[in-house]
Amino acid sequence: MLSHPPAREEFTALFFVESSYPLEKVSEIIAGEQSSGTFISLPGESAELKERSRARVVSITEQPPVNVASLHSEFLKRKHASDKYFRGQIEIAFPVENVGVNIPALLTTVAGNLFEIGEVTGLRLLDITLPEQFAKKFSGPQFGIEGTRSLCNIHDRPIIGTIIKPSIGLMPEQTAQVVDELCAGGIDFIKDDELTVSPDYATFDARLNAVMPVIKKHADHLGRMPMYAINISGSVDEMLRRHDAVAEAGGTCIMLNLNWVGHSAVEHIRKHSQLPIHGHRNGWGALTRNPSLGFSFPAYQKIWRLCGIDHLHVNGIKSKFWEPDESVIDSALSCLTPFSGVQPIVPVFSSGQWAGQAPDLYNKLKSVDLMHLAGAGIIGHPGGISAGVQSMREGWEAAINQVSVHQYAQTRPALAAALEKFGGA
Amino acid sequence: MLSHPPAREEFTALFFVESSYPLEKVSEIIAGEQSSGTFISLPGESAELKERSRARVVSITEQPPVNVASLHSEFLKRKHASDKYFRGQIEIAFPVENVGVNIPALLTTVAGNLFEIGEVTGLRLLDITLPEQFAKKFSGPQFGIEGTRSLCNIHDRPIIGTIIKPSIGLMPEQTAQVVDELCAGGIDFIKDDELTVSPDYATFDARLNAVMPVIKKHADHLGRMPMYAINISGSVDEMLRRHDAVAEAGGTCIMLNLNWVGHSAVEHIRKHSQLPIHGHRNGWGALTRNPSLGFSFPAYQKIWRLCGIDHLHVNGIKSKFWEPDESVIDSALSCLTPFSGVQPIVPVFSSGQWAGQAPDLYNKLKSVDLMHLAGAGIIGHPGGISAGVQSMREGWEAAINQVSVHQYAQTRPALAAALEKFGGA
Repeated sequence: MLSHPPAREEFTALFFVESSYPLEKVSEIIAGEQSSGTFISLPGESAELKERSRARVVSITEQPPVNVASLHSEFLKRKHASDKYFRGQIEIAFPVENVGVNIPALLTTVAGNLFEIGEVTGLRLLDITLPEQFAKKFSGPQFGIEGTRSLCNIHDRPIIGTIIKPSIGLMPEQTAQVVDELCAGGIDFIKDDELTVSPDYATFDARLNAVMPVIKKHADHLGRMPMYAINISGSVDEMLRRHDAVAEAGGTCIMLNLNWVGHSAVEHIRKHSQLPIHGHRNGWGALTRNPSLGFSFPAYQKIWRLCGIDHLHVNGIKSKFWEPDESVIDSALSCLTPFSGVQPIVPVFSSGQWAGQAPDLYNKLKSVDLMHLAGAGIIGHPGGISAGVQSMREGWEAAINQVSVHQYAQTRPALAAALEKFGGA
Repeated sequence: MLSHPPAREEFTALFFVESSYPLEKVSEIIAGEQSSGTFISLPGESAELKERSRARVVSITEQPPVNVASLHSEFLKRKHASDKYFRGQIEIAFPVENVGVNIPALLTTVAGNLFEIGEVTGLRLLDITLPEQFAKKFSGPQFGIEGTRSLCNIHDRPIIGTIIKPSIGLMPEQTAQVVDELCAGGIDFIKDDELTVSPDYATFDARLNAVMPVIKKHADHLGRMPMYAINISGSVDEMLRRHDAVAEAGGTCIMLNLNWVGHSAVEHIRKHSQLPIHGHRNGWGALTRNPSLGFSFPAYQKIWRLCGIDHLHVNGIKSKFWEPDESVIDSALSCLTPFSGVQPIVPVFSSGQWAGQAPDLYNKLKSVDLMHLAGAGIIGHPGGISAGVQSMREGWEAAINQVSVHQYAQTRPALAAALEKFGGA
């Protein structure tokens, strides 16, 4: 059934599929819907056209069927009601020429109307592969891990950071005061909460103007500038203007709410940007939380890497969010893995994070190339912010040296206090 | 439990929620996560800050609980495993000041990290409401229904259209040939398939240059110019350039693959555009197909209307897609309903459409303000394209005059042939 690969450059998409039709049939339907295969014959639809543009099914891997459909389909109810739903992974190859260097066209091909197809009761984009020659034509990350480390002047350990809280509502001078305390405590990285961009009572410019002098003041005595990912999300013109204002003010990072700024605008900012792009993935839960629908993170992060972000959130282990720890670790590993010549990006751990999680993270990732953001784990530390930051560093020292945090804490009061306060959670 | 409304301008979001925690508790968690309510006390977190920025729960409407969670949550498994999951609708009000005129910030507030919250096993954005004073600050549709009708010079009946097929793979001259036949057949509207933007073998410019002279030639004898929604999706710079090329060539519409171009870029094109924006929603299935997750269409279309699109796809009745007919009709009605001073947009019906569906659509919508796109229903008509278009118009004449299509077809061979060929499907 699987067709012979034609002499053309192809990219591929790996899907989870569920259907009451056999997988061989539904694979052909998907390949047809997403290229030129199934329509009634037309004057132009020659063998030559198909050779040029048709998608082809590369592989089908069956999984055990189920008796209840994951998703409702009115079409299947009418056409092929069943109590058996086949499941499996299918890989489909598309001609590079169909798409060109065009992120929306790429996504429309691998994640477009196929989610609507009546024959499927489950469809999820698991992964994509691109030929290196094709992938290198996209923007890709400008700074990645090494560029971010250079700007932070932090090497050989994770970048320790936090989020300005409360999430929203601070006046500019209050924001600056929080940043002042964090920098005094030795923080490496600070980010805005994703909710805050430019509230009427604390506009972007007022926040930038209040915060940057504080950061610069601390940079002088720290010998490095704490990186501040300021949220510039908004209209294209505003984002460009804000980027320039941040660069002008000596800032070293911008943050974008990726899903709601969108692919074309993120890529546009990337082309213009002199600074690393901190990618916040809020809204991601809607795309991934049903395991039979939407996107898996390995595919998602590849698309955003092509668009050119440098950092990407992956939740945290033992967090307050829905996600199992293994999924968080897999997400981070996918950010760290090169693909098709596109450089790795920095995975950003946050939500319910604190010093004691360092050994778990290190043992699973075998890497210190990450941002570890703690909110309460730093600001809520009994010894204050400085001790909170210290505890995070000590947690990572213990992890890297393969000493238990409890043993390491015996001579380190900041780590000991963190274990005491957060260790029972 | 519901708090007193503060003296401030607010917008609201209506959610479906499911949780093993009582709805009153989970509503407060969501309101807190999406504003400034729940974090440990900080110096700046005064009563004044909360009055300024905190979200508040407006209403809670309980639905019958269920015994099995819709979505997995590792957090709930650890903290509050249960065999009872409360369900209901909750409405939350947010201060307008938190967001300002900023689409990504608006979406981050109503559709951000709340999808990740561990306490919920179901969360779906059902609707949003905005004060008129706030809504009017966004771009909004530039052409809407009346502007589109004027450009098409079609009044008092639906705009009858089709999609250029095969979806992808035609050479520019082949595309022009298809368009020539469609225009000769009297079509009102033609769109690119969403898969086609600028394939290497049929670049955007080559397609535009091949097609526009054909459309102009027919406009001369039709006394109206068929509207061609040419797909300009891509990078911001390419979209701007392509828009200008379309306008320069005398085209009357541009098409954007909304979800993958993204909100900021679509709004940017809207600000620049001299032409109606035909919004294609491919990928939408991933956001909506699980009824306990993601978005309902009424909320989705409002966001895109704020961004300024003029037409939006809603699938078709009895289509090849998963969606039940009632859902399709509800979607179309939401496009046609004014909200907060934002003008209606044209709902676009497609997928498996033909002449015989007109009465059903008309009786349910009580409106002819729509685009009715038929693929095989026009191109596959036994009498050819011209008869296919004729059959669609006759179907709508019958519907508007409340005559049965079968009776109407007795003296109209094109409609009769359509009923014969497609009526048994």
